[in-house]
Amino acid sequence: MVRQQVTGDLYAEVQSFYAWQMRRVDALDVEGFAATFTDDGVVVHADGHRQAGREEMVAGMRARLPRYKDVAVRHWFGHLLIEAGGAGEDTVRVSYYTLVTQVDGEGKVSFQPTFTVEDVLVRVDGRLLTRSRVIHRDVPGRPGAAAVL
Amino acid sequence: MVRQQVTGDLYAEVQSFYAWQMRRVDALDVEGFAATFTDDGVVVHADGHRQAGREEMVAGMRARLPRYKDVAVRHWFGHLLIEAGGAGEDTVRVSYYTLVTQVDGEGKVSFQPTFTVEDVLVRVDGRLLTRSRVIHRDVPGRPGAAAVL
Amino acid sequence: MVRQQVTGDLYAEVQSFYAWQMRRVDALDVEGFAATFTDDGVVVHADGHRQAGREEMVAGMRARLPRYKDVAVRHWFGHLLIEAGGAGEDTVRVSYYTLVTQVDGEGKVSFQPTFTVEDVLVRVDGRLLTRSRVIHRDVPGRPGAAAVL
Repeated sequence: MVRQQVTGDLYAEVQSFYAWQMRRVDALDVEGFAATFTDDGVVVHADGHRQAGREEMVAGMRARLPRYKDVAVRHWFGHLLIEAGGAGEDTVRVSYYTLVTQVDGEGKVSFQPTFTVEDVLVRVDGRLLTRSRVIHRDVPGRPGAAAVL
Repeated sequence: MVRQQVTGDLYAEVQSFYAWQMRRVDALDVEGFAATFTDDGVVVHADGHRQAGREEMVAGMRARLPRYKDVAVRHWFGHLLIEAGGAGEDTVRVSYYTLVTQVDGEGKVSFQPTFTVEDVLVRVDGRLLTRSRVIHRDVPGRPGAAAVL
Repeated sequence: MVRQQVTGDLYAEVQSFYAWQMRRVDALDVEGFAATFTDDGVVVHADGHRQAGREEMVAGMRARLPRYKDVAVRHWFGHLLIEAGGAGEDTVRVSYYTLVTQVDGEGKVSFQPTFTVEDVLVRVDGRLLTRSRVIHRDVPGRPGAAAVL
């Protein structure tokens, strides 16, 4: 097990990036969320469905908006593993746990299944963007992405 | 979207401040919690109720103590967005998600609704204190404070 | 209340250590998890049971594996309080909240009781290991480890 040490500054930068990106998605700000990806950004969903490019992402999110009419969604992240490097200092690989809460108008909280996510972030003009995201559903007896980094 | 980069040191300082502040409130340490606010600290609750000053805060918390007789409360924070500056380097604006768990004597966990909180922290004699806090309940179709920072 | 300020680098190092350690336990990687403790590492469980040394740890985890046949477990941490020092710069005391989710094959999420944990970490050959862990169940009317650091 050789792990590279992440600096405090990069740790804060990555966490702040996700804080901003998740505020966009939780606010159902479809365009704002898509803008946190590179133009050719790719998302591979847990069911294997692959979305490529901001346009496809925006269309997919728009189609899902009615599901969120009666709930406020919040994405919670845990245990980020961050690995800088690759192509210069401007590529960052991150994996993390996610828990998604939905709260209805009466304040009742419900939970989506947990997932483990692997991202490749790139720094463009001084700020991070997601270039690729692979989402793994956490299922019994399959560690999934847990050993990735 | 122009976002200022938070340093690793400030990120750690703010997270550590909240870790301490939440241990006080979760331990039902009313005076200790109030001491993490400035003398003239203000909290605007999600129902619009406004508490000003440590004395009012202590009285309000004391009145609510009986609610927590049979549960251990824990506050969980997510996705901090931190913005330093304003009046010198000693003012920090922070927004974050909160999830509150209550566990009873048998270990059963229940959940309060999720909230999004906006704080103004100030550094006094080298340590952070909360000067103001505005708590927004997360409700469907209202992004609330999600776009604040 | 005198609190020492943790640096951004140490904050990131400690968080990354736990991210790695929890991936091992959540992947049911018994040996990999034990390897994140010192040889003489000690865990005191919430029921008072004390495990000393990696061998005892591995045996104990192996015995509990059947419980996790039908669920994917994820450990979530909150509000780390980090205190460096003690024996040189290579001892770090940490306390934190934990919430444990279990998701079954259908995606239904359930929750274990919340806990507060106190760790002593040591840096050996440049990387952190857990030397001791004391786990406190959060129970009503007993703040537990909340005031430790």
